[in-house]
Amino acid sequence: MTDALKEEVYAANMALPRHGLVTFTWGNVSAIDRDRQRVVIKPSGISYDTMTPEDMVVVDMQGNVLEGKYRPSSDTPTHLALYRRFAQIGGIVHTHSTHATAWAQAGLSIPALGTTHADYFASDIPCTRALTEEEVNGDYELNTGLVIADALANSQPLHTPGIIVYQHGPFAWGKTADEAVHNAVVMEEVAKMAWIAHGLNPHLTPIDSYLMEKHFSRKHGPHAYYGQAK
Amino acid sequence: MTDALKEEVYAANMALPRHGLVTFTWGNVSAIDRDRQRVVIKPSGISYDTMTPEDMVVVDMQGNVLEGKYRPSSDTPTHLALYRRFAQIGGIVHTHSTHATAWAQAGLSIPALGTTHADYFASDIPCTRALTEEEVNGDYELNTGLVIADALANSQPLHTPGIIVYQHGPFAWGKTADEAVHNAVVMEEVAKMAWIAHGLNPHLTPIDSYLMEKHFSRKHGPHAYYGQAK
Amino acid sequence: MTDALKEEVYAANMALPRHGLVTFTWGNVSAIDRDRQRVVIKPSGISYDTMTPEDMVVVDMQGNVLEGKYRPSSDTPTHLALYRRFAQIGGIVHTHSTHATAWAQAGLSIPALGTTHADYFASDIPCTRALTEEEVNGDYELNTGLVIADALANSQPLHTPGIIVYQHGPFAWGKTADEAVHNAVVMEEVAKMAWIAHGLNPHLTPIDSYLMEKHFSRKHGPHAYYGQAK
Amino acid sequence: MTDALKEEVYAANMALPRHGLVTFTWGNVSAIDRDRQRVVIKPSGISYDTMTPEDMVVVDMQGNVLEGKYRPSSDTPTHLALYRRFAQIGGIVHTHSTHATAWAQAGLSIPALGTTHADYFASDIPCTRALTEEEVNGDYELNTGLVIADALANSQPLHTPGIIVYQHGPFAWGKTADEAVHNAVVMEEVAKMAWIAHGLNPHLTPIDSYLMEKHFSRKHGPHAYYGQAK
Repeated sequence: MTDALKEEVYAANMALPRHGLVTFTWGNVSAIDRDRQRVVIKPSGISYDTMTPEDMVVVDMQGNVLEGKYRPSSDTPTHLALYRRFAQIGGIVHTHSTHATAWAQAGLSIPALGTTHADYFASDIPCTRALTEEEVNGDYELNTGLVIADALANSQPLHTPGIIVYQHGPFAWGKTADEAVHNAVVMEEVAKMAWIAHGLNPHLTPIDSYLMEKHFSRKHGPHAYYGQAK
Repeated sequence: MTDALKEEVYAANMALPRHGLVTFTWGNVSAIDRDRQRVVIKPSGISYDTMTPEDMVVVDMQGNVLEGKYRPSSDTPTHLALYRRFAQIGGIVHTHSTHATAWAQAGLSIPALGTTHADYFASDIPCTRALTEEEVNGDYELNTGLVIADALANSQPLHTPGIIVYQHGPFAWGKTADEAVHNAVVMEEVAKMAWIAHGLNPHLTPIDSYLMEKHFSRKHGPHAYYGQAK
Repeated sequence: MTDALKEEVYAANMALPRHGLVTFTWGNVSAIDRDRQRVVIKPSGISYDTMTPEDMVVVDMQGNVLEGKYRPSSDTPTHLALYRRFAQIGGIVHTHSTHATAWAQAGLSIPALGTTHADYFASDIPCTRALTEEEVNGDYELNTGLVIADALANSQPLHTPGIIVYQHGPFAWGKTADEAVHNAVVMEEVAKMAWIAHGLNPHLTPIDSYLMEKHFSRKHGPHAYYGQAK
Repeated sequence: MTDALKEEVYAANMALPRHGLVTFTWGNVSAIDRDRQRVVIKPSGISYDTMTPEDMVVVDMQGNVLEGKYRPSSDTPTHLALYRRFAQIGGIVHTHSTHATAWAQAGLSIPALGTTHADYFASDIPCTRALTEEEVNGDYELNTGLVIADALANSQPLHTPGIIVYQHGPFAWGKTADEAVHNAVVMEEVAKMAWIAHGLNPHLTPIDSYLMEKHFSRKHGPHAYYGQAK
């Protein structure tokens, strides 16, 4: 079972450069095996060109390495904090994708402006508060996870399957690693569209709430009718 | 004959990712057989990577599935509304291409600024009005088609072979599925150029009307002289 | 000799899509054989995917077709007007490349802002005046050439090897077809850089004239020392 | 040993077009053999398509050619000035990459806005002062190197492994040629992000200094924990 999850996490990591979301090694994907309480994650700083499924690292919920010859991603404590807090999440991805990161640098949430956004996100994509100096100099990566979790407090995480960390960049998630990558691709694309739309019309209005609900629910609601019956 | 049309619609759908117009499955192309009153359209939510001509769905003018193992695109009622209203249209495409969608989010028509635009569109590319809450919560996709048709009311649809739906994205059409895709590519390109031009000069003036008429007619008028004699 | 020139013009045309300068058939390259007073040019509206060297069209200086089974580019009279006026020019290219065309739509010359520009252009890249209604409704493509020639009046055409036609797009030229394409690539790149630079700093200053002269002359002057000795 | 360095410099040069940093021949990479006081650099104006490792040029610290059939890059005196001034530098790269060059044309330093920047640069990326007319008309390429060195005066060059020369473009460096190219890729990417972020929020604040220090030191400090133990 861990082997299958390693293959899945490997494949999801390899999808990042294919979708243009990463430069060099600036991204990582993980997935969790909830039954066995284990997380599989990309090793830190390993090139996508030479990486294999066997290079994936298996850690327990405290981040202890159980399998693998490499150190896990330095962002592992962030992933673990989110898995611990949100039982619905099965996969997580972090990138520095260009447009989503630019919104994080601008310190602004990515506003819901159209149906492309609403097909995947039932709200704006929040930008977290800044971490304090204490949080950065303390257990930085863990605190990043806690700040994300706090920003999501009142949301259903699968209805807001991504966030941008202030002055840092995007995290996205989903029921699986593959779905997390899918949502990271969507974030980058809606971040780009929203940048262009704002440039065209600084006084634009966000998407009408009934249109947002319609689009999110036709894909994700109990009566979803987009795609094929499952 | 339907088989030939399936091949044509399949090929037109496959052209969307090749032209960079779609992310994942965010696009669909259809074509109509006017004699037999049948429409061939992409199945809903099926990946371009694995799709085959046989996966295309055949529906009648009311949207009943006549052939195919999949559900048709969720946007089928929009396509049908346009085919019913405009007898000149033979193919329709919908995408969420980046720049055209950004104009839709900005709530602005794409202005005719140069000959690139005028080579294909004899007017601005209109942005529709917003759908009302009733229209969205009612027969949403049908109403999208009706709102497009209303926005086109006084235009010759082949002289304005595309439109952007407010807070949603572009629809384009043509005499065939292939021509519809061609026009969708043009829309995206002129949407990008118009964004950049506006950024360079917010006080620019739209294309001179005599230049617009010249360019549209040298390609599409009765005395067209662009390209080879047919 | 004409066969060699056909190969050269064919190769230069094929370089346009490879450099990302054209969508569909929106571009054309020609070259002149000054001794025989013949111009070889791309046929009108023929796809790059299927075009062969034999498809190139040979015309005389009045535009009469001497060889080839297709009509020449509809822009042929523009090319001929430039060849007649400027004896130094051996090749010409016209495209609708995105950023250069956006400057044409904005109605602004592309300002010389840095050494990338000065390595090829010894001045701003001028934007022509608008053609009048009479010029457009008369011999439009010829008049386009005359308006370009007028805008260049006081310049050495190989020191300003390109121009943008108002509300239309770029023309570039050089001693050969290949050099013309090279200059078209440069125009598109400096058009993009100048757009971004203006967005970053609307109050920027153009390149210092002594820096412009230095860079242009180290590549093109009598004492050029860039590249290998020839 | 020189052969190995030629291979290394060749490979680093070939990485430039692969990373989208150069158009035509607008870039060059060098590396130094400190023991033998020799620098290996790309030949001037040679196409990446046909270049081989043997084409690399070996010069001494005064720029005299010791090996190679071509002239060295016209920017060789700039590289040598930097190698002479900063003993820590082992490789240097110069490009005209789009976004970094646009900041140079805007005359602005690239501000540190997020962790992507701080992972590689411990400060803003400075824009040099303009060269004077005397400096340009004198030993121009040498003076470019001196102006860069002056702008870096109080910095540790490996903590600020790149700079933009006013109205010209970026130079980057590192302990090796490969690392220099790596830093050039980062500069271009953070230049793009900073452009977009500024457009989204002209009143954004630069990265918190404690966050910058954390990110730079977790990758480059004495207690670095990003990547694998070395």
